[in-house]
Amino acid sequence: MTNLDIRIRENFDRQAMMQTLGAKLTRVAPGEIEISAPILPLATQQQGFGHAGLTFSIGDSAAGYAALTLLPEDSDVVTSEIKINLLAPAVGDRLIARGRVVRPGKRLIVVLSEVFAVTDGREKQIALMTGTMVPIPKTRG
Amino acid sequence: MTNLDIRIRENFDRQAMMQTLGAKLTRVAPGEIEISAPILPLATQQQGFGHAGLTFSIGDSAAGYAALTLLPEDSDVVTSEIKINLLAPAVGDRLIARGRVVRPGKRLIVVLSEVFAVTDGREKQIALMTGTMVPIPKTRG
Amino acid sequence: MTNLDIRIRENFDRQAMMQTLGAKLTRVAPGEIEISAPILPLATQQQGFGHAGLTFSIGDSAAGYAALTLLPEDSDVVTSEIKINLLAPAVGDRLIARGRVVRPGKRLIVVLSEVFAVTDGREKQIALMTGTMVPIPKTRG
Amino acid sequence: MTNLDIRIRENFDRQAMMQTLGAKLTRVAPGEIEISAPILPLATQQQGFGHAGLTFSIGDSAAGYAALTLLPEDSDVVTSEIKINLLAPAVGDRLIARGRVVRPGKRLIVVLSEVFAVTDGREKQIALMTGTMVPIPKTRG
Repeated sequence: MTNLDIRIRENFDRQAMMQTLGAKLTRVAPGEIEISAPILPLATQQQGFGHAGLTFSIGDSAAGYAALTLLPEDSDVVTSEIKINLLAPAVGDRLIARGRVVRPGKRLIVVLSEVFAVTDGREKQIALMTGTMVPIPKTRG
Repeated sequence: MTNLDIRIRENFDRQAMMQTLGAKLTRVAPGEIEISAPILPLATQQQGFGHAGLTFSIGDSAAGYAALTLLPEDSDVVTSEIKINLLAPAVGDRLIARGRVVRPGKRLIVVLSEVFAVTDGREKQIALMTGTMVPIPKTRG
Repeated sequence: MTNLDIRIRENFDRQAMMQTLGAKLTRVAPGEIEISAPILPLATQQQGFGHAGLTFSIGDSAAGYAALTLLPEDSDVVTSEIKINLLAPAVGDRLIARGRVVRPGKRLIVVLSEVFAVTDGREKQIALMTGTMVPIPKTRG
Repeated sequence: MTNLDIRIRENFDRQAMMQTLGAKLTRVAPGEIEISAPILPLATQQQGFGHAGLTFSIGDSAAGYAALTLLPEDSDVVTSEIKINLLAPAVGDRLIARGRVVRPGKRLIVVLSEVFAVTDGREKQIALMTGTMVPIPKTRG
């Protein structure tokens, strides 16, 4: 693993929400992150599909970590705002969220995330998200 | 409980995500819903605060159920889009999400949700959300 | 006029777009701005209603100036992001946009704008907007 | 010109707002629209840059017409909601908005628009927009 991988994974592993949802970091590259998650029974809505909160959570984390890849080592990042358009129900074998940086910046980082449902190896986009991440100093040793 | 209460609670109880997050329906009124949730260790982000996905999940559900209160009994509702502005970290004794209908409609329902963190009985707003809910036929008996 | 009035009006008068649209600053208070505009034939869309760009423009300016009222004299403000939900067609005698600060801040200011169409003195809400304004140094004397 | 070109241009020519801003339809294809506009002095904000309302207006129209290309001839379209992230000031020789359909649908069409400033032939992205368009019956003969 590269230093970037190690740094992002160490931060990701501290997000209890990602572990609760069964989410894994499946790709780390400068400005780009991929997160994969099953649709666990604990994360469904009233029709048995994945809750919008599941789709949002992995899309938001993918976007946030994409931003973090472009920041100095002593930085962390928080979400300022993010919008999700839901395109189709979260149903299938698992979900994949791909986040990337649209515009880097010192004060604000604009990000985009796309979330896909994978069924029998075929991907269908279920969400489109755009947001703003804000760099903050890292607070944990 | 009124018929409206019963109908909304029956639907809410089927959202496994709400149970996972420890969320409770604390108010049901025509066009208005309140949901309360603790900040469970399983729903935190890397700094130990509530994950944006927690705040989003209860805010989205509050907005969605606010829409559902205004629809016929054989209806259900799905989120079409929703945006969250995060105003402060999700830290405190518990979170409260208050959703309400801004403009009802047959095809689209525009909603607003505000999420607060409660500490020692004092509320601080941590998120502002606006979104669009879409009525769909109820699919489960 | 108070100093605040003078400062906001001086800035508003430099927004050529507001003059093009016939928009007037009708209320200035700390954290709150009201802008009124006719629906000029030059700002319509294909059905003869006000273009979404008209509604957006006055709603965005109302929100931006609401933020500016809370900043030091040597500050200006730019829109980082803003979302508009359109609730009804922009039709009537004139439009009124009311912007206010939801959460002030040094780096980011979260704002909300509501736009109304006025017909025979009765107001109907036509848009709901939430956004983020960013303070910047004032660049013009 | 194809039938699609003619239909879209006929509708575009009825948007007085586009003429006021000097906007031209520069590309029509199924699911994709490009609009080009100068930064006219009448559409500036207080620093002399293009007003957010200019960028929004052409981005919104590009997205809306992209949706319209996929609808039957007797259809029109209105914006339900749209969010804009502003990435850089609207300054340069002219602006180009490129809208495209992300997910078509009978009730809702999810769209994305990117707006660029062109200076000496070089493009710089200044805005990213995502939104929802709603098909409606065409109301004018």
